[in-house]
Amino acid sequence: MQGFEFYNPTRIVFGAGKIAELARLVPANARVLVLYGGGSIKQNGTLDEVRAALHGHDVREFGGIEPNPRFETLLQAVEIVKTEQIDFLLAVGGGSVIDGTKFVAAAARYAGNDPWDILTTFGSTIQDAVPLGSVLTLPATGSEMNNGAVISRAGDDKLFFGSERTFPAFSILDPTKTYTLPPRQIANGAVDAFVHVMEQYLTYPAGALVQDRFAEGLLQTLIEVGPQALATPTDYTVRANLMWSATLALNGLIGAGAPQDWATHMLGHELTAVYGLDHAQTLAIVLPAMLQVRRADKRAKLLQYAERVWGLHEGSDDARIDAAIAHTRDFFERMGNPTHLAAYQIGSDAVERIVGQLARHGMTQLGERQDVTLDVSRRVLEASL
Amino acid sequence: MQGFEFYNPTRIVFGAGKIAELARLVPANARVLVLYGGGSIKQNGTLDEVRAALHGHDVREFGGIEPNPRFETLLQAVEIVKTEQIDFLLAVGGGSVIDGTKFVAAAARYAGNDPWDILTTFGSTIQDAVPLGSVLTLPATGSEMNNGAVISRAGDDKLFFGSERTFPAFSILDPTKTYTLPPRQIANGAVDAFVHVMEQYLTYPAGALVQDRFAEGLLQTLIEVGPQALATPTDYTVRANLMWSATLALNGLIGAGAPQDWATHMLGHELTAVYGLDHAQTLAIVLPAMLQVRRADKRAKLLQYAERVWGLHEGSDDARIDAAIAHTRDFFERMGNPTHLAAYQIGSDAVERIVGQLARHGMTQLGERQDVTLDVSRRVLEASL
Repeated sequence: MQGFEFYNPTRIVFGAGKIAELARLVPANARVLVLYGGGSIKQNGTLDEVRAALHGHDVREFGGIEPNPRFETLLQAVEIVKTEQIDFLLAVGGGSVIDGTKFVAAAARYAGNDPWDILTTFGSTIQDAVPLGSVLTLPATGSEMNNGAVISRAGDDKLFFGSERTFPAFSILDPTKTYTLPPRQIANGAVDAFVHVMEQYLTYPAGALVQDRFAEGLLQTLIEVGPQALATPTDYTVRANLMWSATLALNGLIGAGAPQDWATHMLGHELTAVYGLDHAQTLAIVLPAMLQVRRADKRAKLLQYAERVWGLHEGSDDARIDAAIAHTRDFFERMGNPTHLAAYQIGSDAVERIVGQLARHGMTQLGERQDVTLDVSRRVLEASL
Repeated sequence: MQGFEFYNPTRIVFGAGKIAELARLVPANARVLVLYGGGSIKQNGTLDEVRAALHGHDVREFGGIEPNPRFETLLQAVEIVKTEQIDFLLAVGGGSVIDGTKFVAAAARYAGNDPWDILTTFGSTIQDAVPLGSVLTLPATGSEMNNGAVISRAGDDKLFFGSERTFPAFSILDPTKTYTLPPRQIANGAVDAFVHVMEQYLTYPAGALVQDRFAEGLLQTLIEVGPQALATPTDYTVRANLMWSATLALNGLIGAGAPQDWATHMLGHELTAVYGLDHAQTLAIVLPAMLQVRRADKRAKLLQYAERVWGLHEGSDDARIDAAIAHTRDFFERMGNPTHLAAYQIGSDAVERIVGQLARHGMTQLGERQDVTLDVSRRVLEASL
């Protein structure tokens, strides 16, 4: 087990009807800005529920945060926070809204000249941030219980930042709020969570026995409840386990003390930036190819994954690894996410284009051993066609 | 899955040599009281390491906190905190020292007349507490990452309290600090952690699929590393996994959203109060008997436990349950903890004596369904002889 520091002060309030707890959770005298996305929370009644819970609070609203939240949009919210002297932000939505709200929180109190520097310094220059909370409506990214965010900007830039100042103070997780989500978003969320776990698990054995067991438990749960969540959208137990699994997949716990990969995410981000694919679609495409191309380096963990997660005990080592990768691909496909670029009408010219993006962003030493060079990424992309 | 609130702001700093981080973690201008137990940290160099890391800080020391920390002893530390205007407490030791330090933290700022009321109100009357941190030397109770404490007082009283004010701000977990522990303490710690998990897991199915998987992962890890920790005391990976498992066994995570039992602990506390047995010894005695007596109520979870934790797939349901309970008993015995009262020279008169204690403490409706009456407890004690 590697040395680590684990710190996660976000309060999780979980269950049906918990939005009413906002009355207690949001500071009574705060000037509050509620941030949200494209308006589905207006149609399904969630915004009304939030408004009712905050009755008596001093509240303003800011809608229109996009999937892959954009720097330019968020700067408009920063302006409101400054001019209206907002001192509490409430994100109501999925990972994009929460990520965007974290950026607004940091940018509104940023001492530097250009808030984009928050991204280019990965958050290390953040000294202060407006306190924030969240109401999660879409289980996927884990942003509700971590301090990280991914922000996009015109010109194919999609970058990450994180800071201890940008943990949500609380997040409300009400599984019934996911009942009306489109199947595509549920499918994407399950795949996103699954790959988050894999990035922190499928590396090499490092004596992190507890972390391995927890990761395997999350993968097994996602494999069990993912298809059920599509088949029976209003099954509370299924949605509750999907939601809590997605949160635990990226709250820092399973990665603490374990080697981490994240190469699949880096290639995926470039595919989204260039072709506009959903984040989870890119992960479903890249991960099986990544495991195939790097199977020698990941051999021991692939065998453990085959046995413990997929129950594969028969056949040669290579046959079990092949089967584990095939099962992984099949899970993504059953969740409605094709696992080849061709299914999205993207051809072989993508290979050099994405390699060029990776080069431009300095992504030349990816993976748990920093040995995923541009040449390895090229082979992964070729295997993704 | 039941609704829940999960909040745990303790920062974990994990790894060899991490005591040096105290220089950063303890506030620079604080007046610090270092609290410890019976002096083993003097002999093994840990106290010197703490002193060196706090060089330049304003530090006082208070030693002599007992196993099953006593109210009367802790009040002496409360007096020092008040007269010396201490504003940071650092516990260096195992669960007893950390529990005791939590009590000192709360009692020193308690507004009521009698600090024992903190226990009789289970901590609900705590409004403020002195900030505290810990250096853990003994993996067992999980106190380093929760807000609870168990305190004893003359007259066979052993009571619990908890408060959000008494989370450690940080805890340093250095597995190498456990190398010199007596085997009995390592054995006790592994059993204690194992039973903590079982109290939150072995109840009835409640759709907490993730929590079940995490609990099973902790049990599997403890079964794997527990005997290794006795056989090879300086194996870093083994000790690291034992230490982190014990913390995760009782930091609130696996119990959030799941039914909880704790009847074994209540009977165990009375056995310690009356006969002075180690806490873990009492758990090793009571748990197998508890599972046997309540096997009908716990049937579904016992079968899940048999299959997933012990890999028992053959034979009838009852045969697999029998085997799972036998494996549990055998694990405790292999860890050096006999599982019958007779092994501690305690005879059948213990049954009514402990039932009397339970009655006196109002422990008449224990367990996950509050149906462990005094009569059920009597049968469990009879099965423990």
